[in-house]
Amino acid sequence: MTKVIIIGSGNVAQHLIAAFQKSQNMGTEIDLIQVFSRQKESVSHLLDLKKITDDLATLEEADLYIIAVSDDAIAAVSSQIPFKNRLVVHTSGSIPLNALDDDNRKGVFYPLQTFTKNKEVDFKTIPICLESENATDFQLLEKVAKMISDKVFAINSEQRKALHVAAVFVNNFTNHLYQIGSEICQENQVPFEILKPLISETAQKIMVLSPEEAQTGPAKRNDSATIEAHKAFLSDENHLKIYKTLTQSIQHNGKKL
Amino acid sequence: MTKVIIIGSGNVAQHLIAAFQKSQNMGTEIDLIQVFSRQKESVSHLLDLKKITDDLATLEEADLYIIAVSDDAIAAVSSQIPFKNRLVVHTSGSIPLNALDDDNRKGVFYPLQTFTKNKEVDFKTIPICLESENATDFQLLEKVAKMISDKVFAINSEQRKALHVAAVFVNNFTNHLYQIGSEICQENQVPFEILKPLISETAQKIMVLSPEEAQTGPAKRNDSATIEAHKAFLSDENHLKIYKTLTQSIQHNGKKL
Repeated sequence: MTKVIIIGSGNVAQHLIAAFQKSQNMGTEIDLIQVFSRQKESVSHLLDLKKITDDLATLEEADLYIIAVSDDAIAAVSSQIPFKNRLVVHTSGSIPLNALDDDNRKGVFYPLQTFTKNKEVDFKTIPICLESENATDFQLLEKVAKMISDKVFAINSEQRKALHVAAVFVNNFTNHLYQIGSEICQENQVPFEILKPLISETAQKIMVLSPEEAQTGPAKRNDSATIEAHKAFLSDENHLKIYKTLTQSIQHNGKKL
Repeated sequence: MTKVIIIGSGNVAQHLIAAFQKSQNMGTEIDLIQVFSRQKESVSHLLDLKKITDDLATLEEADLYIIAVSDDAIAAVSSQIPFKNRLVVHTSGSIPLNALDDDNRKGVFYPLQTFTKNKEVDFKTIPICLESENATDFQLLEKVAKMISDKVFAINSEQRKALHVAAVFVNNFTNHLYQIGSEICQENQVPFEILKPLISETAQKIMVLSPEEAQTGPAKRNDSATIEAHKAFLSDENHLKIYKTLTQSIQHNGKKL
């Protein structure tokens, strides 16, 4: 059995705990022996209270420690693990492997997904990006990752940085465009519901087409009459600025291709 | 039976033809009696050749003519319908009702979705936005729309303009962000595949949360260290400009709320 300990109680930690518990119940080689949470009740709905500790000094011996805490707490938490030469990984997209304390062997176990409290996700479909200092540790991480996901990738710190920036574009910024869509609807007494099937299909489309192939709209076809009408319609300065910036970028791209 | 004629052979026309054929086969009150297509073979895979004409002068009498052609051809095509006082509608998000020729009764039948050739969509889930000059025509449009979709809305030309601009944000611009994500992956030798589950979940999330509630990321939490690291990472001037514009907009929004 591979003994795993999760340190943290936020969104990522909770989803990982649930995924490991599920894997364990299905009889895989995994044993989630302990979880650290500053408030025990944050995770008590997920596992036995006796497996939860609120004191890092009482951490048990394990094959793998997964630190799933906020980015700025990773370094400090990793330095408080009361062992030496154990495999300790973090789950962050933007923190380099080297931020972990030197006392233990370092690694990264980064599930690339947006997690929402109380909204279940199918962990099997979530890409897990792995990095370690040596091949043996990588094998262990790979074995553990494959128990909960079908999509496991070797990604070094530089590539992970790129992925994290790209994720900001396709997740944070995309969601912000949804919000602007919703604001435009509100201002004009149109239900935002009407746009939801379009939002769904826009995401589904690139499962079968590349984003280049899927691109449509007035900017793509250089339809300046529609673009000018849209600009005249947008009364919010900020919406207008974003409209202009993204329209120019699409037109610029058309010229590059 | 309600006799319908579709004029056009592009993406929207083809998906409408397929949806009406399907509805007809299920025994509804609809009768798609004719389709106009400049090249008959463009739609011959969808219906009987004898129902296809390439000459507007040979259009038959019908209860409803649906013009599904490119925006700039709508006015001209509507003036070539060889009848008077018939109900003639277009399917465009950005063209006002009044662009249609005065000889016939005007309306709009706008399915708000992105259509891809050869990719089937479930028309039942596609919102159809209707507009007409009088209540009787609206009832006919509503009856026809409900035969192919479960989501039918009364939307006037001004509201439709707002919806179309909002659709540019949530569809065209969002897809462009996917493309930038894909470019960043390519530049850093990371498979774009890794981002696809995130893209899916980002769209699904707002089916249960508002975009405001769903917003996460460094801009939302004012994490200036991560924002600066991302800016330093982005070597493409255009990507950087979009990153700054959207980050500022998210931060600005946070202050408004």
